[in-house]
Amino acid sequence: MIIIMRADSGEQQIHAVEAKLKAMGMGAHVSRGIERTVIGAIGDERKIDMEALEVIPGVDNVVRVMKPYKIVSRDSHPENSIVNVKDVPIGGKQIQVIAGPCSVETQPQMDSAAASVAEAGCRLMRGGAFKPRTSPYAFQGTGVQGLEMFRQAADRHHLPIVTELMDVRMLDKFLKNEVDVIQIGTRNMANFDLLKEVGKVHKPVILKRGMSATISEWLMAAEYIAAGGNHNIIFCERGVRSFETYYRNMLDVTAIPVLKRETHLPVIVDPSHAGGKAWMVPALARAAVAAGADGLLVEMHPCPSEAWCDADQALSPQELATLMGELGAIAGALGREV
Amino acid sequence: MIIIMRADSGEQQIHAVEAKLKAMGMGAHVSRGIERTVIGAIGDERKIDMEALEVIPGVDNVVRVMKPYKIVSRDSHPENSIVNVKDVPIGGKQIQVIAGPCSVETQPQMDSAAASVAEAGCRLMRGGAFKPRTSPYAFQGTGVQGLEMFRQAADRHHLPIVTELMDVRMLDKFLKNEVDVIQIGTRNMANFDLLKEVGKVHKPVILKRGMSATISEWLMAAEYIAAGGNHNIIFCERGVRSFETYYRNMLDVTAIPVLKRETHLPVIVDPSHAGGKAWMVPALARAAVAAGADGLLVEMHPCPSEAWCDADQALSPQELATLMGELGAIAGALGREV
Amino acid sequence: MIIIMRADSGEQQIHAVEAKLKAMGMGAHVSRGIERTVIGAIGDERKIDMEALEVIPGVDNVVRVMKPYKIVSRDSHPENSIVNVKDVPIGGKQIQVIAGPCSVETQPQMDSAAASVAEAGCRLMRGGAFKPRTSPYAFQGTGVQGLEMFRQAADRHHLPIVTELMDVRMLDKFLKNEVDVIQIGTRNMANFDLLKEVGKVHKPVILKRGMSATISEWLMAAEYIAAGGNHNIIFCERGVRSFETYYRNMLDVTAIPVLKRETHLPVIVDPSHAGGKAWMVPALARAAVAAGADGLLVEMHPCPSEAWCDADQALSPQELATLMGELGAIAGALGREV
Amino acid sequence: MIIIMRADSGEQQIHAVEAKLKAMGMGAHVSRGIERTVIGAIGDERKIDMEALEVIPGVDNVVRVMKPYKIVSRDSHPENSIVNVKDVPIGGKQIQVIAGPCSVETQPQMDSAAASVAEAGCRLMRGGAFKPRTSPYAFQGTGVQGLEMFRQAADRHHLPIVTELMDVRMLDKFLKNEVDVIQIGTRNMANFDLLKEVGKVHKPVILKRGMSATISEWLMAAEYIAAGGNHNIIFCERGVRSFETYYRNMLDVTAIPVLKRETHLPVIVDPSHAGGKAWMVPALARAAVAAGADGLLVEMHPCPSEAWCDADQALSPQELATLMGELGAIAGALGREV
Repeated sequence: MIIIMRADSGEQQIHAVEAKLKAMGMGAHVSRGIERTVIGAIGDERKIDMEALEVIPGVDNVVRVMKPYKIVSRDSHPENSIVNVKDVPIGGKQIQVIAGPCSVETQPQMDSAAASVAEAGCRLMRGGAFKPRTSPYAFQGTGVQGLEMFRQAADRHHLPIVTELMDVRMLDKFLKNEVDVIQIGTRNMANFDLLKEVGKVHKPVILKRGMSATISEWLMAAEYIAAGGNHNIIFCERGVRSFETYYRNMLDVTAIPVLKRETHLPVIVDPSHAGGKAWMVPALARAAVAAGADGLLVEMHPCPSEAWCDADQALSPQELATLMGELGAIAGALGREV
Repeated sequence: MIIIMRADSGEQQIHAVEAKLKAMGMGAHVSRGIERTVIGAIGDERKIDMEALEVIPGVDNVVRVMKPYKIVSRDSHPENSIVNVKDVPIGGKQIQVIAGPCSVETQPQMDSAAASVAEAGCRLMRGGAFKPRTSPYAFQGTGVQGLEMFRQAADRHHLPIVTELMDVRMLDKFLKNEVDVIQIGTRNMANFDLLKEVGKVHKPVILKRGMSATISEWLMAAEYIAAGGNHNIIFCERGVRSFETYYRNMLDVTAIPVLKRETHLPVIVDPSHAGGKAWMVPALARAAVAAGADGLLVEMHPCPSEAWCDADQALSPQELATLMGELGAIAGALGREV
Repeated sequence: MIIIMRADSGEQQIHAVEAKLKAMGMGAHVSRGIERTVIGAIGDERKIDMEALEVIPGVDNVVRVMKPYKIVSRDSHPENSIVNVKDVPIGGKQIQVIAGPCSVETQPQMDSAAASVAEAGCRLMRGGAFKPRTSPYAFQGTGVQGLEMFRQAADRHHLPIVTELMDVRMLDKFLKNEVDVIQIGTRNMANFDLLKEVGKVHKPVILKRGMSATISEWLMAAEYIAAGGNHNIIFCERGVRSFETYYRNMLDVTAIPVLKRETHLPVIVDPSHAGGKAWMVPALARAAVAAGADGLLVEMHPCPSEAWCDADQALSPQELATLMGELGAIAGALGREV
Repeated sequence: MIIIMRADSGEQQIHAVEAKLKAMGMGAHVSRGIERTVIGAIGDERKIDMEALEVIPGVDNVVRVMKPYKIVSRDSHPENSIVNVKDVPIGGKQIQVIAGPCSVETQPQMDSAAASVAEAGCRLMRGGAFKPRTSPYAFQGTGVQGLEMFRQAADRHHLPIVTELMDVRMLDKFLKNEVDVIQIGTRNMANFDLLKEVGKVHKPVILKRGMSATISEWLMAAEYIAAGGNHNIIFCERGVRSFETYYRNMLDVTAIPVLKRETHLPVIVDPSHAGGKAWMVPALARAAVAAGADGLLVEMHPCPSEAWCDADQALSPQELATLMGELGAIAGALGREV
């Protein structure tokens, strides 16, 4: 940690910083420049609050030199980590496309969806039983019954299932219904109590980026899960809030190479929630794979226009099959496979 | 709801929209313009999904004409609502400054803080027992024991207490310790299961704005609480995420007049978390009151430089007392009082 | 244009809207819903100001139904337009990678750069003679002399040149030095007087997106150029401002499919200014091509660490050559070529 | 300047940084921490590019310790500067409200506006003769003829005039028509050639903040003007781009105390362009004054509903007079006057 003093700070203020550092168990290394004095703190800065230094009179700015995340950091584990979901590896050479409807509606809908997912060549299936909706008056999901319908439909095609956990009190139900991957949605990325709980189980977790979370905050949210003992974490970029109104969210494609540099964990992308329109999905999906994503989370509905939610962003089974072909060609061009 | 057709859409597509509206129990009113056809949906649009219309081929755009919120809307209740916390009214002529430390640390710290809050003329006290921290390695709050220390310190000065609820499983403990106002923090504004639970109790709720929530989403989050039966809701603007790095969040002062127009419920402002630096607080607090806020949530610590968290944003007791004087003068200029 | 009245508006206010529309030469089509009255304006809404309607008492909101852009709109020209720069087509099957240094420094630097650009298989060259720098104390470019050095170096390899015009008074110098493509930078996207002037000449123009311009504003900026008679416009996405601090700008990859839908003109991407770091460029470049971009603007310097500006974002000649290979494979997978 | 090395960097890379600093004429001060080595650069960092250091292998991050701005910095001039416009001081105890129409339309309109401005007690008048419009098909201003009408109307009431300069080629006309304050609009804040030209004349300049400019970039834009010799600069906050769609721009009220800390120059606020609706203006104007602004730029039209542009954001003469009363009360509460 580096403490930059104000141009008009005096010796007494420099001593105060040194004393505070000492009280924190840190050493101090004072460097007097032409205009400014700069103090380097020696020790493990992760344990100390920057604010307690910033408040000292004469301090202009405090800058971290260490990354605040440890377990999820690539510094701590230089090789790529592969998260195995049953027999399906996420984070290796093979790119995984996780497809399925926005929400679980009925058994026939899920049966049809599962058949299309398998037929398109996807190895995992997604579907929402509990839905975070902006309006309390909108459809809130089919709940536990939905989990059961999902489980039954997916089992017929040996597809591991991915579904969102919103309420910490439902975790037992998720485990009982053998959900294979627990998804933490964008609205809960900083729901720390929920993160702590999924950190205690041994299920893989897909951690979506918060609506306007910085990459650093996102890595720290993953660190919450990892600190509990669960290292099976998959990051999912799903677009962030921006000033642009043409589409729903701005897909942050740059986050892909950044995460691949900062963490050893797999990174996937949700092009459906990013753009919010089915016609944007293929271009965004191709871009994600070309930028190095390890997988995709794609909405597909047997009959998009009849979907109970987000009808305008689901691909049809045919569109999914076509997309899989395009992604295969791009993956091949990069030495990977779909 | 208005459905705007694409310039190249045909009669068949217009009929498809009419049929879909009919199936939804809505009427249709077709208006053929020079370049575009526009279809008005007749009925209660709050019950229907825009996406199910947007997905119909030939549809360019769907526009709502009704507000999605009902109970919290000023249309439904033209007069200002006053939320009473014990005997303290929020939302009336009197502006309430809710002051106290970021986090509950020790009994002496809380005793001292409560004395300063009362002395400055504030009628409510804030303090965090459960702290949402970006890092899992940072101090996480004193928990239930903190609630008890807070209760004891505040009671001596007859100050109702405001504290943050992060985990739905702690609600019983909040009720048992007679927390007077439940605060929902920025990270939980869209934690809908938590909102539903506080909607079932009869405690006043301060609902902070999500990090990058639109005003409309924020009103809908309040609608979640209101739909459960609890109408004692206070909005709290606390700054939003932006590109500016000089301060922590960008205080959205315009949200104050907008909310006062859209809802009958009280609106307060947290200048401490907005700016993130104690020296910014007085200017932001004055601006909030001048713009029409019904109250403030201000961090004050008996000794800011010793605070266990957010040390650089707390006012000292003296600074709080000075600020109260300034706010009184501005309130007076506007026909209100502090 | 649709005028949505407030729930509490009366007949007199509806008549006022009708009268105003009539005065504007528009017809009115009144539709009375259950909660709201909606008035459709019949006629060419591009000629009228929404604000003059919004100001009428009782009006809640005014919504456009026509696109504000005409010449650049795909509605007006459904086929893709190809902009020819000498013999190099931009916007067709072939993807163009325009490479070169951030700034023109010396003749040997430009000679070396031009040789590397040609050798990598690129068909156009970029380089800045006039540099928009945040600080008045930073290097401001080599100016007209730089244009001459650039021209000379590029001519040896028959490379058409692309360079930025910042000052309307320099346009003659650009024409005299036979600049092949005039680049309008992000800071000047809404410099309407400059746009009007380049609209009068017959040189192709690369129009970079403003730092936080919406896609609609960007299309309107192009419309300024097109309205003057110059339809040889190439859009260039270069990242937008966001809250994320890990990289310089957030590349808006979704803008690519959106623009390809909204306009017939070519769309290219600048991955160098988006990320701001050389190591991010390959991933972003691949993503852009995969998403459908017609070309790229890439910084390459003979010796990046010696570059006079933006040293950390330039590729080396070897890195450019490697990237061209990757892009060729992706383009091939999509039925295009580099 | 501080250079933070990567955790895995070696001695050779540290030497390379030292050598580069030496070549730049700077000294180096190496500090080896537990995880990271940090190098302090000794000398005037304003003259060197951070990028040339960031590109050196092994460098993780480079941090400035000096402010990049000099002349406009409060460090260089601790007292408040007062900019005198004829006899009207901006930046002192008296708060100046600069009012007038968005655009100059006709002589009677300007005569009426000037009378209302003077009557309300304002001491300066605003009005646009050249208008930056998003659409090339919209009214572009009355131009030089507008300047003359403005001059004539304002002279009758001894009101100095403020008007926007968009095109560097019109500067002579501005001087000839004795424009008293040159306004640089948001779209031209980073039009560096224009800034350099107004830096050469001795007219006061109002420099509006760019649509998404950081405060640091804005200060640097002012430094461009100041570096040319013209120190009569007034900052004008006018709202920035955000994700919120309820209003036009998000007024950054926090920028007021920040600028007052960072620069000695006056700071004013434009509440009209920030909110974009007349009904929001009073709340925003009061907030700006309460936060410490030295003045306001407010749109007022003799008959708002007839305005040729931005009809929905202009106050009526009566509304302006009422606002002046409110502002006077708030200014008084703060020991200032209107």
